[in-house]
Amino acid sequence: MEKFKVIQDPLNGPIKVDKLALELMDSTYFQRLRYVRQLGLCYLVFPGANHTRFEHSLGAYHLASEASEAFGIRDRDIFQVSALLHDIGHPAMSHSVESYFEKLTGMDHLEASCKIIQGKEPFGDSQIPEILEKFSISPSEVASIISGKSSTYPVISKLISGPTDIDEMDYLRRDALFTGVAMGHIDHRRIFNVTSIDDNSLYIEEKGIPAAESLLIGRILMYNSVYFHKTARIAQLMLEKALEISGGELGNPFRITDHYLMDKLLTNKKAGYISKSIMERRLYKPVLKTSYSREKLSSIKQGIGELGLDVTEKTITDIIPPLDFIGEGRIKSSIQVLVGGRKVDIKELSPLVAALYGTMKKRHILVSADVSVKSRVEKTLGNI
Amino acid sequence: MEKFKVIQDPLNGPIKVDKLALELMDSTYFQRLRYVRQLGLCYLVFPGANHTRFEHSLGAYHLASEASEAFGIRDRDIFQVSALLHDIGHPAMSHSVESYFEKLTGMDHLEASCKIIQGKEPFGDSQIPEILEKFSISPSEVASIISGKSSTYPVISKLISGPTDIDEMDYLRRDALFTGVAMGHIDHRRIFNVTSIDDNSLYIEEKGIPAAESLLIGRILMYNSVYFHKTARIAQLMLEKALEISGGELGNPFRITDHYLMDKLLTNKKAGYISKSIMERRLYKPVLKTSYSREKLSSIKQGIGELGLDVTEKTITDIIPPLDFIGEGRIKSSIQVLVGGRKVDIKELSPLVAALYGTMKKRHILVSADVSVKSRVEKTLGNI
Amino acid sequence: MEKFKVIQDPLNGPIKVDKLALELMDSTYFQRLRYVRQLGLCYLVFPGANHTRFEHSLGAYHLASEASEAFGIRDRDIFQVSALLHDIGHPAMSHSVESYFEKLTGMDHLEASCKIIQGKEPFGDSQIPEILEKFSISPSEVASIISGKSSTYPVISKLISGPTDIDEMDYLRRDALFTGVAMGHIDHRRIFNVTSIDDNSLYIEEKGIPAAESLLIGRILMYNSVYFHKTARIAQLMLEKALEISGGELGNPFRITDHYLMDKLLTNKKAGYISKSIMERRLYKPVLKTSYSREKLSSIKQGIGELGLDVTEKTITDIIPPLDFIGEGRIKSSIQVLVGGRKVDIKELSPLVAALYGTMKKRHILVSADVSVKSRVEKTLGNI
Amino acid sequence: MEKFKVIQDPLNGPIKVDKLALELMDSTYFQRLRYVRQLGLCYLVFPGANHTRFEHSLGAYHLASEASEAFGIRDRDIFQVSALLHDIGHPAMSHSVESYFEKLTGMDHLEASCKIIQGKEPFGDSQIPEILEKFSISPSEVASIISGKSSTYPVISKLISGPTDIDEMDYLRRDALFTGVAMGHIDHRRIFNVTSIDDNSLYIEEKGIPAAESLLIGRILMYNSVYFHKTARIAQLMLEKALEISGGELGNPFRITDHYLMDKLLTNKKAGYISKSIMERRLYKPVLKTSYSREKLSSIKQGIGELGLDVTEKTITDIIPPLDFIGEGRIKSSIQVLVGGRKVDIKELSPLVAALYGTMKKRHILVSADVSVKSRVEKTLGNI
Repeated sequence: MEKFKVIQDPLNGPIKVDKLALELMDSTYFQRLRYVRQLGLCYLVFPGANHTRFEHSLGAYHLASEASEAFGIRDRDIFQVSALLHDIGHPAMSHSVESYFEKLTGMDHLEASCKIIQGKEPFGDSQIPEILEKFSISPSEVASIISGKSSTYPVISKLISGPTDIDEMDYLRRDALFTGVAMGHIDHRRIFNVTSIDDNSLYIEEKGIPAAESLLIGRILMYNSVYFHKTARIAQLMLEKALEISGGELGNPFRITDHYLMDKLLTNKKAGYISKSIMERRLYKPVLKTSYSREKLSSIKQGIGELGLDVTEKTITDIIPPLDFIGEGRIKSSIQVLVGGRKVDIKELSPLVAALYGTMKKRHILVSADVSVKSRVEKTLGNI
Repeated sequence: MEKFKVIQDPLNGPIKVDKLALELMDSTYFQRLRYVRQLGLCYLVFPGANHTRFEHSLGAYHLASEASEAFGIRDRDIFQVSALLHDIGHPAMSHSVESYFEKLTGMDHLEASCKIIQGKEPFGDSQIPEILEKFSISPSEVASIISGKSSTYPVISKLISGPTDIDEMDYLRRDALFTGVAMGHIDHRRIFNVTSIDDNSLYIEEKGIPAAESLLIGRILMYNSVYFHKTARIAQLMLEKALEISGGELGNPFRITDHYLMDKLLTNKKAGYISKSIMERRLYKPVLKTSYSREKLSSIKQGIGELGLDVTEKTITDIIPPLDFIGEGRIKSSIQVLVGGRKVDIKELSPLVAALYGTMKKRHILVSADVSVKSRVEKTLGNI
Repeated sequence: MEKFKVIQDPLNGPIKVDKLALELMDSTYFQRLRYVRQLGLCYLVFPGANHTRFEHSLGAYHLASEASEAFGIRDRDIFQVSALLHDIGHPAMSHSVESYFEKLTGMDHLEASCKIIQGKEPFGDSQIPEILEKFSISPSEVASIISGKSSTYPVISKLISGPTDIDEMDYLRRDALFTGVAMGHIDHRRIFNVTSIDDNSLYIEEKGIPAAESLLIGRILMYNSVYFHKTARIAQLMLEKALEISGGELGNPFRITDHYLMDKLLTNKKAGYISKSIMERRLYKPVLKTSYSREKLSSIKQGIGELGLDVTEKTITDIIPPLDFIGEGRIKSSIQVLVGGRKVDIKELSPLVAALYGTMKKRHILVSADVSVKSRVEKTLGNI
Repeated sequence: MEKFKVIQDPLNGPIKVDKLALELMDSTYFQRLRYVRQLGLCYLVFPGANHTRFEHSLGAYHLASEASEAFGIRDRDIFQVSALLHDIGHPAMSHSVESYFEKLTGMDHLEASCKIIQGKEPFGDSQIPEILEKFSISPSEVASIISGKSSTYPVISKLISGPTDIDEMDYLRRDALFTGVAMGHIDHRRIFNVTSIDDNSLYIEEKGIPAAESLLIGRILMYNSVYFHKTARIAQLMLEKALEISGGELGNPFRITDHYLMDKLLTNKKAGYISKSIMERRLYKPVLKTSYSREKLSSIKQGIGELGLDVTEKTITDIIPPLDFIGEGRIKSSIQVLVGGRKVDIKELSPLVAALYGTMKKRHILVSADVSVKSRVEKTLGNI
């Protein structure tokens, strides 16, 4: 039996995959990731964005190997395995309707991943824990690591989930490649090379400030251009609406695939129309864009509400950037720089970064509607 | 209204799409191409290969624009539209099971494309002819062009379907990018620049021989490494088997999507097991590889046949490269070079090319089987 | 005779060069650009940066063709020729010691270019005007265009020298490629696609703001990482010092090549030591870095001056970013955006850009010295 | 003091350089490599090809690190140092006139490298041996390794100089990048991943045949398109002629730089005309191309010889591919493949490779001449 297999990745080139990883990849839960697009419905705006959590997980596995080499990390196995499995619990459609599924199940993708890795209910059928134990790796330790809080492996934890982690170093570059938006092309090896480990934490060296700046800029530009793209968000909110009105049983979001979900919705009586509109890209058109205020939002919602169910089902009201994003802090915490022994937030050193952090705060309300009700919504909102 | 929209393509960068193309793209038949993978089941071997006929069609549309500029072609609209629509009739799973569907329906993808473009039965619901006519473009002319035999637009015909056509210049590069196999990275602009039009035909200039050589080599290497990849072919033949044994109604292959087909098979009583094996990549393992002869093939088939239905359903016998490929001549006809006014086949001028054409002829038989029956097949075939 | 020749460019791929351009390229003044590095002494920090004004000029020529296609410009010949010739008067070492040569000759590279194009003294031997006139192109018109102020061709003028010009779209990408610093990889085709011409001026459309942001960010990051790189600036100031103390005749800076200049300096009695130090990269080491003030600068200069000629010749005092840069406005003027018919400065629309413009203003003083005098300088500056 | 420095390379990205390598790079002999172009005069055909032996040596140093990781090599220091120094003795103009310099000095670049590494005469001033010994590395061992015949480090020897060595994996990719000719883009990591070490030798695994094929094809295509480019060879032979007729003292070819050589020739009375022609690219034009035979060559030489010195100095007669190339075997020996434990030459397994080896054998004679004598040469050769 060969020691390893080589898999070609469009982003990272040939990836060496060892026996342990191959067994994990062969499991049902992992194979399912082939059918969960990395960017959910963004393919409706960026037609190349059909890449999946499967490739991203493989890419993270590879970057864990590169990072092990760069930082001289010895516990490579558990590092690489954690990288491989960090997204195994992503619901269908990735982040597109994750908050909806979270309300439904009480679980986000991190919690689901931890449970699948450990074979906890409702994922008792997971083959993952058995495989890990066969190779003397503790499932609960892997779960700690991907949660970013293992005390046994603090550095690995931060490299999987921290301000300059390999997860982001794969997805920013991968999403840039597959969307065709050049802005996320960060130089991850350069960042490895200017990162120091001190007292179990990661720091950027002073000479690395330009590299760190370009990481942060890449991140912001990708949010502006892709992750918060106006039209992609309309599609996502249409899908959330389809889920809400379907009223049907769609299956456990952590077990189903993107297309199973869509096919279920397409044959659902209530959600069929809107689902077909999504599939064939007949997306709601913008009716009103205005700066955000709590009062405005409230009167808009009231105005549309008065038009009756037929209209509300065909109208969506979005806050850009989304409120929950701001709250959740998905744009990572700041980077620390080592300057003459002291640890300083990069904001203090880079006027560029300091400026960037102001740019996400401005919020807008965007109302969009199906063609069939657009004029009625326009008329009602005319006075706002 | 804006004159055009810009869509980002991972391969070709920003693509300008005009009003006519936008309307065509909004049609149901075209949107369906989002859900037909360019390389069928190859994603099971090359995990990045989730790209679809949708992006490829858009890419061909773009290359038609580049070629128009390079060759000073005036009838740009019909050229670009033909490029955009040339694959609109591809069945689910692209080439993976096309020959099966052809036997079933009597139509290949080219014929289906021509019918959809003209709204002929069984595609009478196609919106395409109406859109084309609105913009004063003849649907039947477009059908002639994509068939490679329009007498009104002979040059455009050859640029859509000929020995150095834009179809291939998009798919070789696109498949190379998404599979992560570097070998197809041909320089299409270089080829445009060394191509001359004479007497309504395309010729490579003498100085362009190295460029033409690298196109032909890229083509062969992609066949060797991707299109004829042993494991990908096993998956395809498993799917063909699933279709054969399903016995059920799966819908018109030119209307359904990849995942609709798979979901139908997964819930089919007879084909469920094999379909789930494909989806979760439990592919048949090679049992026997031997050089091809008609007699050997016949005795292998007989040997396996005698093991009964339970085994034959879990065993596949492949000829590599496939017999039908050889017959069909899917590796394009040769390139003509202009040398001092004469037109010479590139084989006469390039010993490299002459040699290459010999390399595809050697054939092998490959027998693969499901784990559950592998040892029985091995035993039976031991004597061959 | 062939209509055109194809030259391969690492950045832009194959470039079609027509007969007129070929004749211009064959002239002595143009061939000299092969021996003037695009980034002067930056190769001492970025070893790949050996690219020259020759390739950049060719690249600009190519982008003029792409831009002509994108904007439907009819006067393609004069546009492409102007792009090809816009840097023909660059002195040896490009910008590295341009200000020194300007003091010496009273000419900057733009003025020299205009004179060479028109065959004006001291460039009466230029073959350029004769070639241009043979092809019915007015040399003085070309000179107006590259100065950015032709009233006959106002749009072409702005595309050669304006806030989003093809000159920058070639050099940012080219410098990024050859230095290996990923940050300048702007998507120039995207920018063409979101630029409108109105009333003879160029405007970015509203949807193009992200593309414009990424151009401006690429520009700033390249200045931070490459053009103002601390060590590269030390090398440049060492060269300026070598020129100052050489006292010899080095020839007309607009006629000589990089290596002719260096060879002359190497054999110069006074400048030999410092020149050999540059060639073999024994650069002065930083002694003091402090924030800028006029008073500090004055007392530093006085302190070093008192150490005598032997030390001052081996010490350089730099202001980063350089004072003359700020004055000269080499970071281009701002981009105008079309919003609902109005023209708005991008700063008003993009908080990101507004922020970026603050970042270049902070200035530092950096004193560096040769190893042989470093400790003496350190001692003297200890109190500042 | 920092442990290492990071240098950006356009080809390989950020390269970590340790203290030992930094000291070696700071030596006079190594710095000189900045001024020796990798492809000699090829920049006259491929204007981007200004890259130097300096960057290539750094790239080889980096690939030695990648290969150490891939193959688990422990003696990384001596491997990387050998890679860094393997080309330190390259004469000015790289291979362009190497055979001329070899006749002159009795040394080729490998012998010169070995002597410089060991500080042997006439390179007694080399700082290299002292630096190596300071870090406990044996200069003579390094010399053995780069000669490909160290018995202490047989694997490292073969990785520096063998059928699949890191030298070629850097230069093929680098030359492809800087010439803009896409054909040399081999996937070196893929090749590492399919290479096995057995009994101190390197073998390709069976699954690696397509990767090995693409390496061999890339090699041949680069020879056809770049290294043997007709016009580049004319320039090289012109330079050889300039050297022959100069009769002057030009300095030790292993100490001088490209431009020092050219400047010397430009001021040489006899060689000035031809040297200026090279610099400004007024290259000799082809007069006669005919298939090779010893007899033809002899009568051509005689015919030109009778025209007198004035003409012979302005005429060159080339054999393509060059005779000495064939003799010298610069196209590397074949690759061995492991098939079921046996070692088989790749030619036996790959019809593609078998075919390729036939393609280099056909030879032509090409006579070229300066414009001033072209018609006289044409007339004389009219009868051949």
